[in-house]
Amino acid sequence: MLTAAYTGDSTITVSEAEPRPPAPGEVQIRVAYVGLCGTDLHILHGSMDARVQTPLVFGHEMSGEIAALGDGVTGWSVGDAVTVMPLAWDGTCPACLAGNEHICQNLDFIGIDSPGALQAYWNVPAEVLVALPEGIALDAAALVEPVAVAVHDVRRSEIAPGEKAVVIGGGPIGVLIATVARAFGAEVAVIELDANRRAQIAGLGFDTLDPREVDQVAWVEEWTGGAGADVVFEVSGAAAAVLGATSLAKVRGTLVVVAIHPTPREIDLQRVFWRELRILGARVYQRTDFETAVELVADGTIPSDLLITKIVPLAETRAAFDDLEGGRAMKVLVDVRAGQPAIGEEAAA
Amino acid sequence: MLTAAYTGDSTITVSEAEPRPPAPGEVQIRVAYVGLCGTDLHILHGSMDARVQTPLVFGHEMSGEIAALGDGVTGWSVGDAVTVMPLAWDGTCPACLAGNEHICQNLDFIGIDSPGALQAYWNVPAEVLVALPEGIALDAAALVEPVAVAVHDVRRSEIAPGEKAVVIGGGPIGVLIATVARAFGAEVAVIELDANRRAQIAGLGFDTLDPREVDQVAWVEEWTGGAGADVVFEVSGAAAAVLGATSLAKVRGTLVVVAIHPTPREIDLQRVFWRELRILGARVYQRTDFETAVELVADGTIPSDLLITKIVPLAETRAAFDDLEGGRAMKVLVDVRAGQPAIGEEAAA
Repeated sequence: MLTAAYTGDSTITVSEAEPRPPAPGEVQIRVAYVGLCGTDLHILHGSMDARVQTPLVFGHEMSGEIAALGDGVTGWSVGDAVTVMPLAWDGTCPACLAGNEHICQNLDFIGIDSPGALQAYWNVPAEVLVALPEGIALDAAALVEPVAVAVHDVRRSEIAPGEKAVVIGGGPIGVLIATVARAFGAEVAVIELDANRRAQIAGLGFDTLDPREVDQVAWVEEWTGGAGADVVFEVSGAAAAVLGATSLAKVRGTLVVVAIHPTPREIDLQRVFWRELRILGARVYQRTDFETAVELVADGTIPSDLLITKIVPLAETRAAFDDLEGGRAMKVLVDVRAGQPAIGEEAAA
Repeated sequence: MLTAAYTGDSTITVSEAEPRPPAPGEVQIRVAYVGLCGTDLHILHGSMDARVQTPLVFGHEMSGEIAALGDGVTGWSVGDAVTVMPLAWDGTCPACLAGNEHICQNLDFIGIDSPGALQAYWNVPAEVLVALPEGIALDAAALVEPVAVAVHDVRRSEIAPGEKAVVIGGGPIGVLIATVARAFGAEVAVIELDANRRAQIAGLGFDTLDPREVDQVAWVEEWTGGAGADVVFEVSGAAAAVLGATSLAKVRGTLVVVAIHPTPREIDLQRVFWRELRILGARVYQRTDFETAVELVADGTIPSDLLITKIVPLAETRAAFDDLEGGRAMKVLVDVRAGQPAIGEEAAA
């Protein structure tokens, strides 16, 4: 089978490997699609070299079907359509003991800290499997993981039906947050610099703003009857966006920090104090978020067709990152099966 | 009667004025003690010149007795010991309509935005009065307002009995927060640079740290069994303290921003994200905080004797600020009655 691994120095190496049978407690998944995301881009750029061990077969947004069951695995059958919630926790650290296993102090993020899905056959512990409903398209199902991120962010904000949210940054996660927040009953406006993205987002029925052309504070104030937004999601990662975000929120409003900020950012603490704002970090997801994400993908709430810009075979993984790089693509999927026979077919060839 | 007013240019002018009878709905208070605070210092330094109108009779931490009732005031009697919750809201802005009157978008902070307590007789609307119990010492009662700030900060943190809190900055508000958090059942450690203050705070039974001598992150980790603090209160106002504060909090822990930061501050958003932290702004108080504060002062939970460093007559208000300035005093009170006869006595003189 083919695998795609980060081998350091901005390099992705595609090579042949022998699938291994699942160990006790594991299942072997025949991977269908893998989504590439911003974190994968960080890995490729070497920003996470201190954390990852090379060669790293990466990829953590995926869909597939169970190919084989290891000893002792119950409740699953060969052929089941599945995705994976790629978190493994130790269950013993203070965070786990307090019920926050998803941000275990020694979290193993599968696909970053241990091997991921960019391989035709992938073995994972059975407990990370998440069932996909019959009839779901497996390409769309590869979006479940980023949708679960968005569900987690929106849940963490505690936004209520009828409230108003501003999403700063209209990339894939921003669009998913906007979509999930709307599905939860909120009205949503998206701030985005790129005109093409704005047009796409407007096509989904959201208000959009170019902050270089519109005074965003005045716009939000007008939109909210002088109150300010109930929730602001900072998804852009830009320092200027963080600094301005607090001015968009109402008294006792919430700012959810979704983007990763590698260096400290200036925050307007005077505004945080003055309006008694709440700033929340939000990281990955809990199982309930994953299950909601499966539903939102399956019922068509998530505009998969718009989000999936391109699908490439595994051998072209490296090139696919170039599309992501310049913001030219919303979401690129790797079709892992393309050109790769199933195990039985290989044996017959 | 004597009044002390900020008249611009770092100047406090003490002058004679004629008391006026209370208007309908007002009460006239014979002011006993007025506490001077950091905000008053900001006013004196001109940092709030854009907001205040001079001459400003300032002072908003006080105690006194009712001297006269205006028409239509019921429920109060001449001679009642009182303090004042110095907030007046419009009742019509979005914040008020959402139940957050204490941070009304058009809040009148009495003593800053309108005349305050540094005058022998002070007229206020009856609805800002807060009753003091019989037998409370009026000098200690002048601490109720800053204690209410501390109660609000601690309530906002949602700290639970048995949890651990770190207070960064052991000035008057830091000590009050530590004291209130302990009264609410928390264990508290205080980080403070000044050795004299640390000794005072240790004398109150709190753990204290000098962050130049002890690795505060390692200390807190050890103290909390590897978890991190449940709540961190940032009371110092120092940029470095804000930057380091997020490293002291547990997964899903809370950082309460108590100090005023006139310029944006760097925050370690990577840590906020990684641990799903919560940062909360906290401003002034609600009536329930004031009522709790009265109880904590009355029952001796608040170490008034330690906190009140000095009491000066109104004519020496300007000099009293010099003691506050260098952190030489915890709390300086102005004894407004000293040398000033009551109205009846004046008439008899």
